[in-house]
Amino acid sequence: MIRVGVFGASGYAGFETVQLLKNHPAAELVFATSESSAGQSLSDIYPVPWNIPLAPVAEATLEQVEAVFCCLPHGASMPTVISARKAGVRVIDLSADFRLADAELYRHWYQVPHESPALLNEAVYGLTEVNRDQVRAATLLANPGCYPTSVLLALYPLLKAGLLDPAAPIIADSKSGVSGAGRKPALKTHFVEINENLAPYNIGRSHRHVPEMVQTIDRLGGSGERLIFSPHLAPVSRGMLSTVYVSLVQDVTPEAAHRLFTGTYAREPLVWVLPSDHLATIGHTRRTNRCAISITPVNPRQLILVSSIDNLGKGAAGQAVQNFNVMFGLEESAGLV
Amino acid sequence: MIRVGVFGASGYAGFETVQLLKNHPAAELVFATSESSAGQSLSDIYPVPWNIPLAPVAEATLEQVEAVFCCLPHGASMPTVISARKAGVRVIDLSADFRLADAELYRHWYQVPHESPALLNEAVYGLTEVNRDQVRAATLLANPGCYPTSVLLALYPLLKAGLLDPAAPIIADSKSGVSGAGRKPALKTHFVEINENLAPYNIGRSHRHVPEMVQTIDRLGGSGERLIFSPHLAPVSRGMLSTVYVSLVQDVTPEAAHRLFTGTYAREPLVWVLPSDHLATIGHTRRTNRCAISITPVNPRQLILVSSIDNLGKGAAGQAVQNFNVMFGLEESAGLV
Amino acid sequence: MIRVGVFGASGYAGFETVQLLKNHPAAELVFATSESSAGQSLSDIYPVPWNIPLAPVAEATLEQVEAVFCCLPHGASMPTVISARKAGVRVIDLSADFRLADAELYRHWYQVPHESPALLNEAVYGLTEVNRDQVRAATLLANPGCYPTSVLLALYPLLKAGLLDPAAPIIADSKSGVSGAGRKPALKTHFVEINENLAPYNIGRSHRHVPEMVQTIDRLGGSGERLIFSPHLAPVSRGMLSTVYVSLVQDVTPEAAHRLFTGTYAREPLVWVLPSDHLATIGHTRRTNRCAISITPVNPRQLILVSSIDNLGKGAAGQAVQNFNVMFGLEESAGLV
Amino acid sequence: MIRVGVFGASGYAGFETVQLLKNHPAAELVFATSESSAGQSLSDIYPVPWNIPLAPVAEATLEQVEAVFCCLPHGASMPTVISARKAGVRVIDLSADFRLADAELYRHWYQVPHESPALLNEAVYGLTEVNRDQVRAATLLANPGCYPTSVLLALYPLLKAGLLDPAAPIIADSKSGVSGAGRKPALKTHFVEINENLAPYNIGRSHRHVPEMVQTIDRLGGSGERLIFSPHLAPVSRGMLSTVYVSLVQDVTPEAAHRLFTGTYAREPLVWVLPSDHLATIGHTRRTNRCAISITPVNPRQLILVSSIDNLGKGAAGQAVQNFNVMFGLEESAGLV
Repeated sequence: MIRVGVFGASGYAGFETVQLLKNHPAAELVFATSESSAGQSLSDIYPVPWNIPLAPVAEATLEQVEAVFCCLPHGASMPTVISARKAGVRVIDLSADFRLADAELYRHWYQVPHESPALLNEAVYGLTEVNRDQVRAATLLANPGCYPTSVLLALYPLLKAGLLDPAAPIIADSKSGVSGAGRKPALKTHFVEINENLAPYNIGRSHRHVPEMVQTIDRLGGSGERLIFSPHLAPVSRGMLSTVYVSLVQDVTPEAAHRLFTGTYAREPLVWVLPSDHLATIGHTRRTNRCAISITPVNPRQLILVSSIDNLGKGAAGQAVQNFNVMFGLEESAGLV
Repeated sequence: MIRVGVFGASGYAGFETVQLLKNHPAAELVFATSESSAGQSLSDIYPVPWNIPLAPVAEATLEQVEAVFCCLPHGASMPTVISARKAGVRVIDLSADFRLADAELYRHWYQVPHESPALLNEAVYGLTEVNRDQVRAATLLANPGCYPTSVLLALYPLLKAGLLDPAAPIIADSKSGVSGAGRKPALKTHFVEINENLAPYNIGRSHRHVPEMVQTIDRLGGSGERLIFSPHLAPVSRGMLSTVYVSLVQDVTPEAAHRLFTGTYAREPLVWVLPSDHLATIGHTRRTNRCAISITPVNPRQLILVSSIDNLGKGAAGQAVQNFNVMFGLEESAGLV
Repeated sequence: MIRVGVFGASGYAGFETVQLLKNHPAAELVFATSESSAGQSLSDIYPVPWNIPLAPVAEATLEQVEAVFCCLPHGASMPTVISARKAGVRVIDLSADFRLADAELYRHWYQVPHESPALLNEAVYGLTEVNRDQVRAATLLANPGCYPTSVLLALYPLLKAGLLDPAAPIIADSKSGVSGAGRKPALKTHFVEINENLAPYNIGRSHRHVPEMVQTIDRLGGSGERLIFSPHLAPVSRGMLSTVYVSLVQDVTPEAAHRLFTGTYAREPLVWVLPSDHLATIGHTRRTNRCAISITPVNPRQLILVSSIDNLGKGAAGQAVQNFNVMFGLEESAGLV
Repeated sequence: MIRVGVFGASGYAGFETVQLLKNHPAAELVFATSESSAGQSLSDIYPVPWNIPLAPVAEATLEQVEAVFCCLPHGASMPTVISARKAGVRVIDLSADFRLADAELYRHWYQVPHESPALLNEAVYGLTEVNRDQVRAATLLANPGCYPTSVLLALYPLLKAGLLDPAAPIIADSKSGVSGAGRKPALKTHFVEINENLAPYNIGRSHRHVPEMVQTIDRLGGSGERLIFSPHLAPVSRGMLSTVYVSLVQDVTPEAAHRLFTGTYAREPLVWVLPSDHLATIGHTRRTNRCAISITPVNPRQLILVSSIDNLGKGAAGQAVQNFNVMFGLEESAGLV
């Protein structure tokens, strides 16, 4: 059993991570922290019968674990990650703090200076299906954001094949469940404001996940600058659907387009390419750790990709555990299906 | 046109009151206040195209109005009501501050001393169908709570007829929409906590609306001490359903039971007694200002009454405007249907 | 008072039409029909206290009315419209049967031959803001579909100004409430299938509303063939949001883009152009008869337009009554705000 | 591995049963049937990647299994159960067909004659915590209804202790998720009818689950005739909450009341008695196979019990698998936590 700890266990992503680890065949949860609920048990803050104590971060016993999952908010994650790395513990960080390779870019988008640009060089961007080889050896893993996961997995086969038209926009229209906005009460997540509503926010090039997607699109040879991204908040608790519109550099038949996706993801345990006459819905991945993708040709040069993940599963805790599995040489889907 | 003002226009009940007054054939809105959003317009805080400015309470022009609707929270309402009465303005208070005739009882349940026990003598409890004559002359009207409105309108015909068994429990199992919990963000009203959930709270004799119901049941000759009240929060934005279980002092046929209700409410424009084979649902009153009631006999001595209101309509703003109409000699349902 | 009848009053759009007419200052409802509920009253099939009898179509008293609203399903509408026109009654048809000018195109998309190509010449496409002059004189008005209304009102100012790039795709990603799918029970509208889900369907160029949008885009000088349209079913009862991505033929500043929209719609009572820092949400138009539009520039050549309507309001019954008002010389927003 | 089959795998309870068996450590699914979807795979009718073929009932290979789960509708279940018993296969029947010991009572409530009164003697009512000893040896197990499970587990400790006042009503006010109404499309389960609504139905003594509850209450020495039961349909997909009001024959302190429940259920792996200051909510058991119960004393003679289950978990498939585990000598919670 690999001994692990979880920082920030009281938020939605942290709680989901604890749940996955609790049922994991090869992990043992040694500690879970929460600043806001320190001294309480998980059963005090969630309707579950688990007496898992919540310690303050300062009391985390780093010396007793081999790996930690850091589920703290952006900014708050940095010092904890730095401490854990100093203690020689492998880190899976679910925040955005180590996703952008460029410290200046981080400062621009997150409005705080980066506290450890050196660690940025160590960090591996954990989009598992794309970076598996680097993930294996990672000591500091930056777990991707939920929106980037859903959009990038849809684009990856086309980017890899060099089929995306570099001059045409890549339009990702995404719809997210409300748990993605965190558990801290706010008017925007009030039931009455969300229910019977659907609301775009930070559309165009203004959401913080844009530079994260741009970085990966560029690394894969695409034109990140052509990305247009429109997130919407939808009245569901969990789930995320990205409808992605792309243009191709050459004519592609519907069969070839579909084959490209099934081929690329043939051996992937956590990506499900739907049959060619199906469309992905949030229901295809709800409460799972997989990504489902459908491909709809509009004409020989244009495709609509629909990508579905659970924002807390493949979009956060599920992918974190998937990366943990890869990092420790376990079966990749252990504890995830 | 009767000139009116609204205190506390940015909360759900205040906003609903403004909406009703805006469309009211005989009222003219002179001012609307909000402490949290002072200086802004209603269109800044709700998705509506109405440039209605929000002033701080201190700038309310009491001298320009004949009546005010006070939609402030419990406790905060008292000083404003006192000022308005000093200025000679008639007040419709939607808070609980003037509902309980006994200042000590108020202190017990609301944990603050009452600031004006003298005004409690002036206050009329505005359950319109029960107290219409007093409402007509009211200078300070205490608008009933949403739960009491739904439960008391179901009990009234039986109380009036002296049919309730004083030795048997009166059990009111109520389900409320989330707007009843207010607009201030809190974990309990977070979308993810409410959605796909249903939660009882303060059940038995512990909710603050218990003394309010007890007071009216007692005044109508019933045994308020026998009331058991269980509120539940349901995943709907608006609406309230109370399922009320009562025992009778004598055998009553289904026809007689139904006739008692249709008779009692025969001339009421805002109470709808359903046909005997129907059951009231939240849908029967959603976004209306009426109460719908169904009567289901279990046996000759036991009835189940189901009472439905919109918690912001007949349960708050709708009844407030209904009382306003009665107070000013207007048609009782003006602006309400 | 103008005497009117409603065909198909038991469906969601028909019921909404009856509600609007019931409160309309200048219309008098003479008959309402329903095949499935003939002989019953509206209060038997909806939770409302209105004893409006439902007659079979065959008993509709066309000779007593000046206008009819036809809310029957596609295909079923044709014979009724033909009868009404023979009787000299002006018709507002909410079905798709008279929207496409080309009978062959109708046959292709709806899989039935058109029964009266001659009437297609008479029919006016009732996108009020675009075709108001023709609407005034219309004897047969084809009320637009909900998706086309939301998408076309977003595009209209740009089409009118000749600013859309004819070589670039027009991408409309639309999200609709479930009432748009009709009241007839089906697995796809089952609560459990819709709730906590979000599902695309008929995306690309395969939805029946595509030819309707193409026809209007072309008439306004645009390139309808470049339209890509992706409808999604969202877990809300009412409402529709279209996020529309367009490319321009020349650089346009954010201010100029916004001014184009406010200018075009300056005198429109039922179109609300939001301030430039706002984004339209379903909440902006829920249970109203207006359209709300926001404009978000991505760069000088690309805009994201977000258009919000209530699919039963401006998307169906509301626009039908708006057209009725124009046809009969009434105030355009009579009974609608 | 114990070889099993599932009849009626395409409904919600059948699909849930298949899911549980798929992950069960000691069961092997040999066949799954569906009349409506025969010839298809589960992945054709649910958004899951499992190629589990659906056979017609007639092709079920009874000779290859040791046990079958029968998830067919009431009435349709009887002939299948009879066949399976003739083939010597142990049966867990999720329908109501073998729950009532009295064939005449069955005919009265279900409006069809019972086809095998003899088998009624063989049938064991599978409320596991109450009848575990009989369940062990059962060859035909009648799995309880969802409402009876939630109400009876709340009453059981009091019935066992002889504390219920036989002269006082037992009032169970229950709220159920929509999956309990089945997957067959109907107006009552249409999203638009359920959403933003809450509706009582068959209240008093008229729901088919009343005789089932009465039978068990009577067997345990209580007064089933005093039961009043009010089911409500709530806008959630899964979950059930019963708020149960009872009177006691003697004074009981809050501590003693709580101790009675914790004592009775001390060794039960699938019943969770909440701490005395908590109230059960649907969230306490959502997507689990347990029952959560809270106890709230109103006064020394009156308690409010709140009982929460997932209607598809402990209320159907979960309890079926729990009974299967007991019948085959497996760990009782195998595959369930």
